[in-house]
Amino acid sequence: MAPAAETRSAAAWTRKDLLGIAELSADEIRTILDTAESFREVAERPIKKVPTLRGKTVVNLFFESSTRTRSSFEIAEKRLSADGLNFSASTSALTKGESLVDTALNLQAMAPDLIVIRHAYPGAPHMLARRLKAGVINAGDGAHEHPTQALLDAFTIRQRKGRIEGLKVSIVGDIEHSRVVRSNIHLLRKLGAEVTVAAPRTLMPVDVESMGVRAVHSIDEAIDGADVIMMLRIQLERQGRMSFPSTREYFNLFGLTTERMARAKEGVIVMHPGPMNRGVEIASDVADGPFSVILEQVTNGVAVRMAVLYLLSGVRSEDGGEG
Amino acid sequence: MAPAAETRSAAAWTRKDLLGIAELSADEIRTILDTAESFREVAERPIKKVPTLRGKTVVNLFFESSTRTRSSFEIAEKRLSADGLNFSASTSALTKGESLVDTALNLQAMAPDLIVIRHAYPGAPHMLARRLKAGVINAGDGAHEHPTQALLDAFTIRQRKGRIEGLKVSIVGDIEHSRVVRSNIHLLRKLGAEVTVAAPRTLMPVDVESMGVRAVHSIDEAIDGADVIMMLRIQLERQGRMSFPSTREYFNLFGLTTERMARAKEGVIVMHPGPMNRGVEIASDVADGPFSVILEQVTNGVAVRMAVLYLLSGVRSEDGGEG
Amino acid sequence: MAPAAETRSAAAWTRKDLLGIAELSADEIRTILDTAESFREVAERPIKKVPTLRGKTVVNLFFESSTRTRSSFEIAEKRLSADGLNFSASTSALTKGESLVDTALNLQAMAPDLIVIRHAYPGAPHMLARRLKAGVINAGDGAHEHPTQALLDAFTIRQRKGRIEGLKVSIVGDIEHSRVVRSNIHLLRKLGAEVTVAAPRTLMPVDVESMGVRAVHSIDEAIDGADVIMMLRIQLERQGRMSFPSTREYFNLFGLTTERMARAKEGVIVMHPGPMNRGVEIASDVADGPFSVILEQVTNGVAVRMAVLYLLSGVRSEDGGEG
Repeated sequence: MAPAAETRSAAAWTRKDLLGIAELSADEIRTILDTAESFREVAERPIKKVPTLRGKTVVNLFFESSTRTRSSFEIAEKRLSADGLNFSASTSALTKGESLVDTALNLQAMAPDLIVIRHAYPGAPHMLARRLKAGVINAGDGAHEHPTQALLDAFTIRQRKGRIEGLKVSIVGDIEHSRVVRSNIHLLRKLGAEVTVAAPRTLMPVDVESMGVRAVHSIDEAIDGADVIMMLRIQLERQGRMSFPSTREYFNLFGLTTERMARAKEGVIVMHPGPMNRGVEIASDVADGPFSVILEQVTNGVAVRMAVLYLLSGVRSEDGGEG
Repeated sequence: MAPAAETRSAAAWTRKDLLGIAELSADEIRTILDTAESFREVAERPIKKVPTLRGKTVVNLFFESSTRTRSSFEIAEKRLSADGLNFSASTSALTKGESLVDTALNLQAMAPDLIVIRHAYPGAPHMLARRLKAGVINAGDGAHEHPTQALLDAFTIRQRKGRIEGLKVSIVGDIEHSRVVRSNIHLLRKLGAEVTVAAPRTLMPVDVESMGVRAVHSIDEAIDGADVIMMLRIQLERQGRMSFPSTREYFNLFGLTTERMARAKEGVIVMHPGPMNRGVEIASDVADGPFSVILEQVTNGVAVRMAVLYLLSGVRSEDGGEG
Repeated sequence: MAPAAETRSAAAWTRKDLLGIAELSADEIRTILDTAESFREVAERPIKKVPTLRGKTVVNLFFESSTRTRSSFEIAEKRLSADGLNFSASTSALTKGESLVDTALNLQAMAPDLIVIRHAYPGAPHMLARRLKAGVINAGDGAHEHPTQALLDAFTIRQRKGRIEGLKVSIVGDIEHSRVVRSNIHLLRKLGAEVTVAAPRTLMPVDVESMGVRAVHSIDEAIDGADVIMMLRIQLERQGRMSFPSTREYFNLFGLTTERMARAKEGVIVMHPGPMNRGVEIASDVADGPFSVILEQVTNGVAVRMAVLYLLSGVRSEDGGEG
């Protein structure tokens, strides 16, 4: 059973893979968000399950550890009645020296319908997508893209603000090393938002303005007039070295505090992709406060991933009755 | 489908969480045991599955490794047709420095119905239960409680002896560091058994008699007249240091041997929560011998956990037809 | 639902366990291959699932890491609608010092229908099979046997060549340390193939000809006239020490190259159990070339494992209607 409201938009979907936001059209983005809308309420039913992907096999191939993204996909798969299969780097044949392509070709030979992949190497999902008949979903590739995160962020903004076009969105933090920010800039620009990025100079890419965003070096400038404030996780584990003197220093200069929020626009919302470093990039009272939509993002993530799995699964074309 | 026999007792269940035996009434304990009774036979069917929790999401959050308890819960979930989701410490966001509360709030945002948690920190399940709408089941918190273990022990005793009231139950081993013994003392006292605990002085808490039990320092005294002998696992990995000269010395002083069993009361049963250290706290021929109900405990564990999952899931109130 | 074509052959199946090929009759092997035939097409359906093992519990007990075999079994279980439960060495009670027998007895007490086990110790599956009521499937025990691999190899040969009897099959590589080669020799001999094994002297068991095979020490001799060439993985991790100067030297002497294939018989097929060491035992252009059936082996592996799970599950006898 596909949600009735989906029939029209799903019919328009033609991509086998979701590799990044960069290659999507604004219409394709809207199709995913509209589809997610109709899956949103499944989580509120007593029986949180639809038979939409029954008998479909989804492989979750996580080469980097993850709670949030992996569990969000797993729950989305279970709620769609798909059969999910989990692989992590430590249990895989990669430890026997097999290449990513051979691992994928072997999985492919077992006829999965979709492969969800997280990998430290930018472009790994694209390489798989070219080689495999199965649909490939990028669940984060190095510092490149994390498209379902940007989609769930957009879904949350649209739900709270009614639209994305014309909104002022500020993204604050480690702009340099974040796949989340890259996917979000692509998406927000395509849907007509004005994007400001704010970071210390050591965490800001030199050419960031070529992506069509305004770059500032003060969090207060970023907050001023913003409809949406997206805080990024300080990814100490990804940097290799500290780009600032200390986490306390970072909090003083770029942490989102109640004092700073006092000067924000009325109706502003605060977002974070998680996991949060409380007291580093965001104060606990802001994270848990009235402007925060951080937990809504997590809830919406399941609906957005259900929509992506559904659209890519091709259910719609194969059996009009059930799909 | 809820077992018919359950309708009455399930109607009386009001708790969202199962955190410990200490807070349960004797009636609540009996409700769980009676409910387990009706799930017991599912394991003997050719199709070992009932649709009772179809479309319910159960998260298994194990921060300590476990075969027996985790697999028992997983099988219970599958037999109830619930969707189970597994997290272990090594794959979780905790390795990125996220707090337990944030991990839990994020899981919560994905709308699970129940969370089964094992954690090294006493009280961790209680903290989650206060914060979350989902029901929380304590699968062992440090040296504090392990309520489903005590419930399956009680179920096994009742099945073999027909009752718990008035029985003489002796618990032998590492009384100091065991969450199993704490839960069992609470339960057995509430249901009217006479409890004796036996341990070397170094493994006996000083105030144990305040829990309403008799403390002895000889296994022979504990065996004498007992209807039930519960052996505890010597948890060398939990102690940090040896509290006795050697495992051989321990076996000589406190090991349950065929010779010692020869002086036991007729009809006595021998229990062990596993995993056993054969030749340390129990001799192999006793573990595998005629008095042993150790494997029945494991079998009953699945039924007891099905009962707990069922009672906490609130199925009964939401859909009278199926639940 | 069992495939209609199976009714007859399944009726003939009487074994509880699949421990090795050595103990199977030619008829039993043919029964498994015929049964796999009818499961082969499930992977090509839009809904890749049959309800055959609904409500059956299968425990996957992997004490050695594995992608291919474990995932193949997991997919087979899901496609049969069985409830699969995964254990790996690192999460098991074995880390608490429990014996394999105790782990198994405890799993048994939870009433699984089947146990799939991979273990470094030859004979571990046999020991379990003697102690347990559940059916036991050997998924690889040390250097002893790997029966489902030999069965999927035979299935692939039969599919490509129409028969096994009278074929010339050459197995090339590390004959000494391979469980795959032992199972394959047993199977191919029972079904009437002529088997040649080729290896450097350091990787060839001294008494190999007692298994009814011809032993040669040149890959060119092995290729000459062969209908089937099976390359083995050089299992560096299993040897402990190098039995040859270098992997480049090995490739020069025993690697399967396009040049060597130019002298092969017309219609020859090339097989490999995976994971491949490209450029060690096989050249990439051969692995991906027109003679290669390596990915078909993987596809057929799922069908063969579905057949084994189905035959051992005893479905056929317990409920004629559904099974």
